[in-house]
Amino acid sequence: MTSPPTVSLATAQRSLGDPGRRYPLWPPLTGGCPATSTEEVSYPVEVEYAYDQVPAGLFEARPGRGGLDRWAPLLPPLAAPGLGEGGTPLVELEPGVFVKDESRNPTWSHKDRLNRCTVGAALGCGAPGVVVASSGNHGASAAAFAARAGLRCVVLTGTALPPAVDAFLHAYGAVVLPVPVEARWPLTRRIADRFGLHPVSNLTPQAHTGHAFGAEGYKTVAYELHAELGVPAAVFVPTGYGELLFGIHKGFAELRRLGVTERVPRLIACEPATGGPLTAALRQGLPATWVEVGPTEAYGINCPVGGYRGVVAVRESGGRSVLVTDEQARAAQAELGRAGLWAELSAAVGLAGLRAAPREEFDGPVVCVSTSAGFKDQGAGRGPREAPVAEWEAARARLLAAGLRE
Amino acid sequence: MTSPPTVSLATAQRSLGDPGRRYPLWPPLTGGCPATSTEEVSYPVEVEYAYDQVPAGLFEARPGRGGLDRWAPLLPPLAAPGLGEGGTPLVELEPGVFVKDESRNPTWSHKDRLNRCTVGAALGCGAPGVVVASSGNHGASAAAFAARAGLRCVVLTGTALPPAVDAFLHAYGAVVLPVPVEARWPLTRRIADRFGLHPVSNLTPQAHTGHAFGAEGYKTVAYELHAELGVPAAVFVPTGYGELLFGIHKGFAELRRLGVTERVPRLIACEPATGGPLTAALRQGLPATWVEVGPTEAYGINCPVGGYRGVVAVRESGGRSVLVTDEQARAAQAELGRAGLWAELSAAVGLAGLRAAPREEFDGPVVCVSTSAGFKDQGAGRGPREAPVAEWEAARARLLAAGLRE
Repeated sequence: MTSPPTVSLATAQRSLGDPGRRYPLWPPLTGGCPATSTEEVSYPVEVEYAYDQVPAGLFEARPGRGGLDRWAPLLPPLAAPGLGEGGTPLVELEPGVFVKDESRNPTWSHKDRLNRCTVGAALGCGAPGVVVASSGNHGASAAAFAARAGLRCVVLTGTALPPAVDAFLHAYGAVVLPVPVEARWPLTRRIADRFGLHPVSNLTPQAHTGHAFGAEGYKTVAYELHAELGVPAAVFVPTGYGELLFGIHKGFAELRRLGVTERVPRLIACEPATGGPLTAALRQGLPATWVEVGPTEAYGINCPVGGYRGVVAVRESGGRSVLVTDEQARAAQAELGRAGLWAELSAAVGLAGLRAAPREEFDGPVVCVSTSAGFKDQGAGRGPREAPVAEWEAARARLLAAGLRE
Repeated sequence: MTSPPTVSLATAQRSLGDPGRRYPLWPPLTGGCPATSTEEVSYPVEVEYAYDQVPAGLFEARPGRGGLDRWAPLLPPLAAPGLGEGGTPLVELEPGVFVKDESRNPTWSHKDRLNRCTVGAALGCGAPGVVVASSGNHGASAAAFAARAGLRCVVLTGTALPPAVDAFLHAYGAVVLPVPVEARWPLTRRIADRFGLHPVSNLTPQAHTGHAFGAEGYKTVAYELHAELGVPAAVFVPTGYGELLFGIHKGFAELRRLGVTERVPRLIACEPATGGPLTAALRQGLPATWVEVGPTEAYGINCPVGGYRGVVAVRESGGRSVLVTDEQARAAQAELGRAGLWAELSAAVGLAGLRAAPREEFDGPVVCVSTSAGFKDQGAGRGPREAPVAEWEAARARLLAAGLRE
């Protein structure tokens, strides 16, 4: 293949609240659409592109490990250096059921696709660094890409951080500030204002809007799936704020718009049954809403508030949402383990969603996105340790008990 | 590209102790070369191929994420299903210095390239499962590929297992038997004999021979480096038993033999200064030797015994060995973290080796192989936790102390 063009065709930011309303591409609107947001709801913005200038053949060459640069024309300007993000493998679990294993990314989660774009936005703004509110994958990924770009990174975490996440935030040299959850978003905004750090996570409490450029990075999941599978019948996505869900839908919608494909897959939003703000918003016909959240081990997507992006993705794709219990998630996590894939519990919620749905509902191959690696779970490494087994007879007894035959 | 041929051209096993001595391809010699091994030293075997039948263009198409199948003609029969192993990204650390990030593999280490081959050998032998002695990446990887293949897996671990490794061995459904280190190899052999499990790690105490097919999988690192970089001046490899070192050298030697390249890179074996059996063997002119090992946090490559493969790789490539202290390894680990790569301490020993060597010694680009992810370190997740910071003034003080300016 000839090396792909690396110039972005991004032209503007567009309100999801009022699609007719456009803003210049710079600066990125990190607080959503100022015109259409109200006291009750905040609307995100998305990025528009000069689709008529997309180079022929962009979608013909197979994806490699060159990072998101491969898709630069349909992404915001990739001002920050990459780490070989994206290009993750598709593992066939059974005929027609595929797992998109996002744990192969630089910080072992899908968030690296988002942060390649958001840290580029920070560089493009001339910010000295980024600030992110996250207790998990988002913060670690932002810290890695900020470090790679030579920027500072401040991560506001919860006060109960998984051991591995705590360790690798520090590995990337981030300044880690554990704060109570209610202080997270106001403090993010205050640090952004006072220190000039570029916020790469959400700022709007009344509904999630996130970063203007972030969800664009997730479109590359759709481009990669199309390159390997064509258009699947459905894509099952672990859903917190719905940015990944929206990004994958937008990627397929762009392929249709460009005439590369004729249809889009159904986007199935898989939420923890202990919360489910998107499910509630869809049921109530709202752009976004709040819900009470109960305890779940799927901490990565246990969100009390949703965002309009999720509603758009489900509605436009003819998809739906599904609520998943921790028991169903653990069963899916175990199923992935038996296939050689150790996924974070939150990441297994996509497969759990598929297993909870009637198979005949989906005519054709389906994809479950596994967003992250099992070592990031709260419980990882805290399981019961076994007593040392020194003697052959003891080992033999254990093996016979495990069903092995001499 | 046309899809690559998936048939193996492997023809036989050949003794490294006496290159004229050949054995049939099956069964794999899991205990090294029976004819040339003595009381003092065991010699490994390698796999031979019908090099005259290598399809034209095998090395022209760029590597993707399709797994090792891409290189099937020059690998042992890949009877076991893959997990999208290999095809890992190359990250440029500074001009001319590249990091091959093996933490992007299915179980986040280079061992997945080996176990794709060894578990295939177990299937080819009709074994009901595999047995492996490992406290780290090898065991977890064997467990994953065995699970993917529907085989049982028994892992003999040390009694001080890193939390994450313990967790993910169980995630793949392996039977985990913690045993004292001295019982490891005899018990592996006994379990293999009594239960018919195929041994995928070493069986020979007097020198490491490992599995006949395993090191072949590592050749794909060389094929991938060549596809992206051509032939670098040197490759720095964290070295325990020397299988990865040998595999990378053999891959480049094959490219030269096939006329694809004219030379091979220098293979630099990077060993912990607390041990260094390969360094000792090279110094004493021995095929392999034992050393006393002191304490090191680079537990993954802290080996008291070496193997002849390492000697062959260094001698034939005009390379050398370098001893790395934990302090140097931690400095390299921190350097990788600042570049957005969180490596296991053992994995950072390759970069530490480069930093310890005079740069002018290497005329051209150099590659440091980073074998695994930081979360596997003994200390990961056990670092000091910070006190919650709720107040803006306290956060502000922390940020000012961290050098940020308002």
